[in-house]
Amino acid sequence: MARGRISRLSVRDVRFPTSLGGQGSDAMHTDPDYSAAYVVLETDAGDGLKGYGITFTLGKGTEVVVCAVNALAHHVLHKDLKDIVSDFRGFYRQLTSDGQLRWEMLLCFPSQIGPEKGVVHLATAAILNAVWDLWAKQEGKPLWKLLVDMDPRALLSCIDFRYITDVLTEEDAYEILKKGQIGKKEREEQMLMHGYPAYTTSCAWLGYSDDTLKQLCAAALKDGWTRFKVKVGADLQDDMRRCRLIRDMIGPEKTLMMDANQRWDVPEAVEWMSKLAEFKPLWIEEPTSPDDILGHAAISKALIPLGIGVATGEQCHNRVIFKQLLQANALQFLQIDSCRLGSVNENLSVLLMAKKFGIPVCPHAGGVGLCELVQHLIIFDYISVSASLKNRMCEYVDHLHEHFKYPVVIKQASYMPPKDAGYSTEMKEDSVRKHQYPDGDVWKKLLAAQEN
Amino acid sequence: MARGRISRLSVRDVRFPTSLGGQGSDAMHTDPDYSAAYVVLETDAGDGLKGYGITFTLGKGTEVVVCAVNALAHHVLHKDLKDIVSDFRGFYRQLTSDGQLRWEMLLCFPSQIGPEKGVVHLATAAILNAVWDLWAKQEGKPLWKLLVDMDPRALLSCIDFRYITDVLTEEDAYEILKKGQIGKKEREEQMLMHGYPAYTTSCAWLGYSDDTLKQLCAAALKDGWTRFKVKVGADLQDDMRRCRLIRDMIGPEKTLMMDANQRWDVPEAVEWMSKLAEFKPLWIEEPTSPDDILGHAAISKALIPLGIGVATGEQCHNRVIFKQLLQANALQFLQIDSCRLGSVNENLSVLLMAKKFGIPVCPHAGGVGLCELVQHLIIFDYISVSASLKNRMCEYVDHLHEHFKYPVVIKQASYMPPKDAGYSTEMKEDSVRKHQYPDGDVWKKLLAAQEN
Repeated sequence: MARGRISRLSVRDVRFPTSLGGQGSDAMHTDPDYSAAYVVLETDAGDGLKGYGITFTLGKGTEVVVCAVNALAHHVLHKDLKDIVSDFRGFYRQLTSDGQLRWEMLLCFPSQIGPEKGVVHLATAAILNAVWDLWAKQEGKPLWKLLVDMDPRALLSCIDFRYITDVLTEEDAYEILKKGQIGKKEREEQMLMHGYPAYTTSCAWLGYSDDTLKQLCAAALKDGWTRFKVKVGADLQDDMRRCRLIRDMIGPEKTLMMDANQRWDVPEAVEWMSKLAEFKPLWIEEPTSPDDILGHAAISKALIPLGIGVATGEQCHNRVIFKQLLQANALQFLQIDSCRLGSVNENLSVLLMAKKFGIPVCPHAGGVGLCELVQHLIIFDYISVSASLKNRMCEYVDHLHEHFKYPVVIKQASYMPPKDAGYSTEMKEDSVRKHQYPDGDVWKKLLAAQEN
Repeated sequence: MARGRISRLSVRDVRFPTSLGGQGSDAMHTDPDYSAAYVVLETDAGDGLKGYGITFTLGKGTEVVVCAVNALAHHVLHKDLKDIVSDFRGFYRQLTSDGQLRWEMLLCFPSQIGPEKGVVHLATAAILNAVWDLWAKQEGKPLWKLLVDMDPRALLSCIDFRYITDVLTEEDAYEILKKGQIGKKEREEQMLMHGYPAYTTSCAWLGYSDDTLKQLCAAALKDGWTRFKVKVGADLQDDMRRCRLIRDMIGPEKTLMMDANQRWDVPEAVEWMSKLAEFKPLWIEEPTSPDDILGHAAISKALIPLGIGVATGEQCHNRVIFKQLLQANALQFLQIDSCRLGSVNENLSVLLMAKKFGIPVCPHAGGVGLCELVQHLIIFDYISVSASLKNRMCEYVDHLHEHFKYPVVIKQASYMPPKDAGYSTEMKEDSVRKHQYPDGDVWKKLLAAQEN
């Protein structure tokens, strides 16, 4: 059904001044400005449909991603959408091995700025997210439903298996998807009825006072939340106090997770978490460098006897890293990110590898639009791949949804499947205009105030 | 001795149209344009000394690195050079955990565009390379000599040990450097007399015809080269023919290495190299994805019985990856790169880890200026760290040296230690002006010709 030729690609630097968020933290100026490189694709199909794609960033540096999107734009412009999606694997490969970064050239000298990591991969994600949004809109389906309805072979034709065939061949993947067909209809109905379970990170940021923490936690309990994540890693005594406070409030039955945001070296992570084990966390997230697969494996090995799993993934820059985390038993919870990996295409390969290794996927979300996007992937995962909710949940952070045209719907601590066509990536034009950096109204005012 | 405040940072996009190199290949248009983001630091010291720093890129995308350098510039501007180098570890940490990408912020939400990999890390390298060049110039020493003369504690104060303490503590590193003091003077004299052994990659690019290959190989033999690298991986029959041809020409005693530039999946790499084993390669370089530590370990395990080692590193984006390659026995030859890692600082940590694991370092070079820079690091490595030449050599590619003010000097297939002060990073101003992209004369002409 895909139709039209891509006639225009625009990309904008959109920043929300979240560092002024007013939670009263005295370290406010060190907070990030949640931002996005925001891509819009237009076609000559005459149907008025556009594709919207984002990748999430943290303020400064967004201009670098915008720059990279422009450097990649020529791969998309003047292409027929039909040609792109009918050979999506080929298109993915082309984009991730860009022109002067291409294979023939890699044989002379490998790329030094990409491929499949860092800024260039983020730019790839933004563009591909827009392609998927456009395609789903043309099909008149929310992205998750587009994926659920796709024939297994068609799904596989979107995936680049390069570098992962030692753990997952196309045939392995096909078997998984074929099995996933059984009971699919029931699971889809179940999702439409009850949604996908979520957990909240909104209660326990590191900068919050104990009072704020208590207040937010009480409110979340009242709203029906049963799974809570707390940030740790800056000061052990402080962590002990805050974890005790939360565990006392939520009781022994509800789920507590901890997140160290790469704070520790390997031995330090083990030592620190042994101290926090008494608060019964389900997992410790990002205990050390996201590049340290063997480090995560060592930490997992030390913490499993304490009943604590390791969770990671939001910073893992491609499927090769996830492959190794799985091979090395380095994680017990796998956290995909909709904007860091190469869009739906690469996330599909990770969902399938996780299924093969029997590791639950618990997506990372928050930021700008990450909840909006990743809900599609995890709902698809449940219906067509994992077929299980055991130890599974999707992160939820309650902010910036008001800028999206199709914001997430949370009911009883669950993501309700989106019903609008597309990938929920479209932002309100008014929000975009106001928050464009540096010439949107919001920034003009802030920057002028800074100068005075 | 460091003096002056950084008063100016400029960065330029310099590209050499090497894709038009005229080797007669019919796939010429797919070749890369070797390029650099070129940073110049000026101070208010009034001594006329400037610091020059580069990072190597492949044409398209250089503008993204330039963009990232500008985003990081504020860390360097208006700083005293003395303050930078007297707390180089702190400065390194600051630069790699930039402002809105900083630690306090990471606790709220981790960076999505850096840190310590990709474009942002390349930009960091360019800036830090300029700082080291400036410092060495002010000290009136070539960089290798500045390093050799530094007190072990001072050297260690340049290194960020974060994320590597599980294999190398500061005390381990100190022990290594202290041992390296023994015989240092003799090794320095030896280097000045005979230079550091090199190997050539200039003979056997994949695009060359057999005749060209024979010609170049004969010329290299005549020039005294004894170590040769050949590119493989596109077509097995073609590889067999070319490897046989070279092995026949150089005889059984000289050294042959092979480079697959990430061409294969893991099982494919083992299968392919089993076929090429008869030509007795010392190593296979980059058999698969540079991110695949466990893949390299599997390949190593399969190939060691065949007498073939695995070499990798030019694409490894930080010390955490090298740490794991060493931990996993994934390589037998470690290839540092002067422009991909975080400059001298991060390379020091890798040299020390390699020493601890007893793995020889054989630097990657070529590109734009990589030979000029990395010779300093490997000469230092020999004099102060490894104290051995066994199985060690530095890559050499014979091009673009004419654009550098202090080009490498090769004598009898060895790098002769640079004698001019600095890091050999300075390019001829005339070359820079002509090759600036897109408004240098060379590009104006090429782009105009393209339009006609």
